[in-house]
Amino acid sequence: MKVYEYKGFPNPARVRIALAEKGMLDRVAFVQVDVPGGEHRQPAFLAKNPTAAVPVLELDDGSCIAECTAITEYLDHLDGQPALTGRTHHERAIVHMMQRRAEFGLLDAIVAYFHHATPGLGPDIEVYQNKEWGQHQYKRALEGARYLDSVLAKQPYLAGDFFSMADITAFAGLVVFDFLGLEIPADLKHLKAWRARVAERPSVKAA
Amino acid sequence: MKVYEYKGFPNPARVRIALAEKGMLDRVAFVQVDVPGGEHRQPAFLAKNPTAAVPVLELDDGSCIAECTAITEYLDHLDGQPALTGRTHHERAIVHMMQRRAEFGLLDAIVAYFHHATPGLGPDIEVYQNKEWGQHQYKRALEGARYLDSVLAKQPYLAGDFFSMADITAFAGLVVFDFLGLEIPADLKHLKAWRARVAERPSVKAA
Repeated sequence: MKVYEYKGFPNPARVRIALAEKGMLDRVAFVQVDVPGGEHRQPAFLAKNPTAAVPVLELDDGSCIAECTAITEYLDHLDGQPALTGRTHHERAIVHMMQRRAEFGLLDAIVAYFHHATPGLGPDIEVYQNKEWGQHQYKRALEGARYLDSVLAKQPYLAGDFFSMADITAFAGLVVFDFLGLEIPADLKHLKAWRARVAERPSVKAA
Repeated sequence: MKVYEYKGFPNPARVRIALAEKGMLDRVAFVQVDVPGGEHRQPAFLAKNPTAAVPVLELDDGSCIAECTAITEYLDHLDGQPALTGRTHHERAIVHMMQRRAEFGLLDAIVAYFHHATPGLGPDIEVYQNKEWGQHQYKRALEGARYLDSVLAKQPYLAGDFFSMADITAFAGLVVFDFLGLEIPADLKHLKAWRARVAERPSVKAA
């Protein structure tokens, strides 16, 4: 299997952590796509992912799976022992609920801030920007972080007592905060403690 | 089980179709939430779903599951016979990839157009609007529809030869087009033919 990515970007980091959690980092070949140079918008890459985003998982038959949630579902079920996406129907539901909240409310929001309210990847890539929208997304990301903090006040991980895909997504969101030099508000103590714990996981260190 | 919803809205329709596909419409009690009146932003509802959105599935123990993807995962796995979310790890991945594309690229985009570029649910509910962003989302929704059309040129349903959660999401997106009096471009023939087939499903008629 191959993973097309741009190392250091938040969405590729999600798949790297999932691979490491499953003990599969050495089962894939990583191929770098020059996203700042626009390679993801060239026909060769669009044939792999028409939505022009990394990462993409290419299977040995040449077919491709995009979208981090989908790639994580694939990797997590490959050994018949799902862990990151939940083991029961109830766990699955909670993981997907928190995954969507971490993605829509935190990661997607802070990435939208980056692309719209900052120079982002530069004028050649950011062909449409809406600065006011970007600034509003920063506020949304802070609200999202505050909500996640309230969840983590009651349980060790976002979906309960086990590390899941939702934690990976939220962790990637906070990586973007760091990258942009944005502070996580000091009173979000549960979120900060959770983040420190997640950062110590062997999978996160290996990814 | 209870489903908190506002009948006729696109996201509640997704859960109704999923329930009907699983033969479970009569196993839930539907509770209407006055979204145009702002009931979804009152403390009683926020206790069920802090993101203030319908639908919400309330289980018999009083706990709640929000987000359509999560509710559909729950319902689909309840009988141990998943169908709408894929049966194998490969099907699961394709369903989630197409689900995300149908949601991010079509349904969320056209809903953002409604909330930002039209009066939406009125000034009491639409406390933040960005008209230019909303108009851009309309363009994105048309691009999303065009992409889905290209997928449906090659296969009967969005995830392959079986009806899935991704089809439900995209169908809900086109319901919003109708509601807003927006035309689906005439050359998207595969999308239109698929839509006519989906509209004839007993589940969609029953929902």
